[in-house]
Amino acid sequence: MKRVIMDRCGAPAEVIRIEDGPEPGDPGPHEALVELVASPIHPADLLTIMGMYASETGPLPKVPGKEGVGKVLSVGHLVKHIKPGDLTPVLLTNDGVWQERQVLPAEDLLALPPGGDVLQYAMAFANPATALLMLREVPAPALGEWVIQNAANSSVGQYLIQLAKRNGIRTINVVRREGLAGALHNLGADVVLVDGPDLPRRVARVTGGAKVKLAIDAISGDASARLAACLAPGGALLNYGMMSGKNLQVSPAHLIGGGIVVKGFWLPPAMAKIGADGRAKVFGELIPLVVTGTLKAQVEATYPLDRAKEALAHASRSERKGKVLFKNAQI
Amino acid sequence: MKRVIMDRCGAPAEVIRIEDGPEPGDPGPHEALVELVASPIHPADLLTIMGMYASETGPLPKVPGKEGVGKVLSVGHLVKHIKPGDLTPVLLTNDGVWQERQVLPAEDLLALPPGGDVLQYAMAFANPATALLMLREVPAPALGEWVIQNAANSSVGQYLIQLAKRNGIRTINVVRREGLAGALHNLGADVVLVDGPDLPRRVARVTGGAKVKLAIDAISGDASARLAACLAPGGALLNYGMMSGKNLQVSPAHLIGGGIVVKGFWLPPAMAKIGADGRAKVFGELIPLVVTGTLKAQVEATYPLDRAKEALAHASRSERKGKVLFKNAQI
Repeated sequence: MKRVIMDRCGAPAEVIRIEDGPEPGDPGPHEALVELVASPIHPADLLTIMGMYASETGPLPKVPGKEGVGKVLSVGHLVKHIKPGDLTPVLLTNDGVWQERQVLPAEDLLALPPGGDVLQYAMAFANPATALLMLREVPAPALGEWVIQNAANSSVGQYLIQLAKRNGIRTINVVRREGLAGALHNLGADVVLVDGPDLPRRVARVTGGAKVKLAIDAISGDASARLAACLAPGGALLNYGMMSGKNLQVSPAHLIGGGIVVKGFWLPPAMAKIGADGRAKVFGELIPLVVTGTLKAQVEATYPLDRAKEALAHASRSERKGKVLFKNAQI
Repeated sequence: MKRVIMDRCGAPAEVIRIEDGPEPGDPGPHEALVELVASPIHPADLLTIMGMYASETGPLPKVPGKEGVGKVLSVGHLVKHIKPGDLTPVLLTNDGVWQERQVLPAEDLLALPPGGDVLQYAMAFANPATALLMLREVPAPALGEWVIQNAANSSVGQYLIQLAKRNGIRTINVVRREGLAGALHNLGADVVLVDGPDLPRRVARVTGGAKVKLAIDAISGDASARLAACLAPGGALLNYGMMSGKNLQVSPAHLIGGGIVVKGFWLPPAMAKIGADGRAKVFGELIPLVVTGTLKAQVEATYPLDRAKEALAHASRSERKGKVLFKNAQI
């Protein structure tokens, strides 16, 4: 059984290898044997492999991968809510998704409606839930109000555009290169701007001086400072990534004179905070949108697990049009 | 009547000049004529002159200076709470302190107890109130808990040490050079450390791994990131200055994984927020401490107003032992 292994932290395409691991045993009474169907390579996966993620990378060697969709092969005799043949999300906070088969606690699995696109299913939870919950962070934009985000062409960025549109929130989408406006407008973006030193002036002009209360930052570095400069007094800069690899920057003038606040967003504690009911509501909101194709992320390429080095190198490139995923060609 | 004038923004010692202005007229019924006795040169004054302060510098030319102590020369016939000869704080949000005489609304003035040190009186409000109110920002350290601050040898830093000590809060004081520990321990500092890349490790060792919830930052730049790295999960970095002249930096890992929050502190809105009763309480707390010499800041040098260029150059040097003040030699 093939699995991806990281032995140490470093450049993703260099420090991972493929190995033939032992087949997992039969599932226990409350467990299920699940075969991986597809799994995206998230920035969080790359950061974990590089040893730069928000949480510790943990004991090594380990199998990376945080999210995917799997097919249930068999279940323990006490498991009733899923059955062999069902598609299920596989979400592992401490990694381990990138292996052909594994036994998992059945309570963490749920049967997805049949007929959905497996690649979209594979990306249906971590990023959409991140986008959904970030839009509800204080001070949350109300109907007709504006939110600004950078890395708008990332998966989270694209989901955020779509979820904001559905909720009547207007989006200012900052990207790092020309040529993305058409695709993002098609998703529902209200405004698309290329990042630059005069960003605040252009934002003010295009929104007619709207008071932007929430800015969502996946880049850090001086991109954060430009985003913060677009905020109205008392606004919040919400950071959920460091694509630049640099510390977040913000002008003290905006903190002191503008009274803005800088905070971080991380899905595991945010999901823990809303409790089981809140999580069920989030999933209940997202699944129908993914099944119907209302909510979708763009796909750049798929690779089988045994081409993981190529896949990770591809996912590490900044000029992509969408997500790179692992896909089991047998299913 | 001598006054300091700034015609444009720039290096303080270069862009200011002394001029002979017209004498102010007699005070109206609700006003008082006040002669300047002493006034500190705060970092906020230097930043205002450089055009880098939290609030706009405003229309030019103008007289700089935000705080001082004055002597009442005469009062309007409806003014009862102060009388000629009284010492009074002079606090001007929009600057204007650095002139020999001016007419002011009497309601903003109050009679200070006689016998206090005029230099300490001149510094008795803006910085001590900043220190006092920052210690009460959420998550405020409770009795026996720790706060960490950098620029601990600044005036605000020294007041903060003294006010924390009086309130049973323990202080970790970060400075940029050796040789300051003795003086800060004398003020009541619990721990004094020289800033450096291994700051978090040394803080953990010296406090026995205490959970530091509040970090107070006057420097910005990478000094902010080091201070944030000393915080316990869920802590807050409170920024009130940019002595480095650089953007504040913080690692996204501390925001996202550590759940810390970055916010700014600025005295005018903080004083506005607590209302007239809150302000009276703050003054009531500070005045006795200043009169008795319990609360004091170190003085590096005093200059008459007409040596303002020298005074500003001196105040701009980073290696000072205390505050540079203007002092009226006639009083």
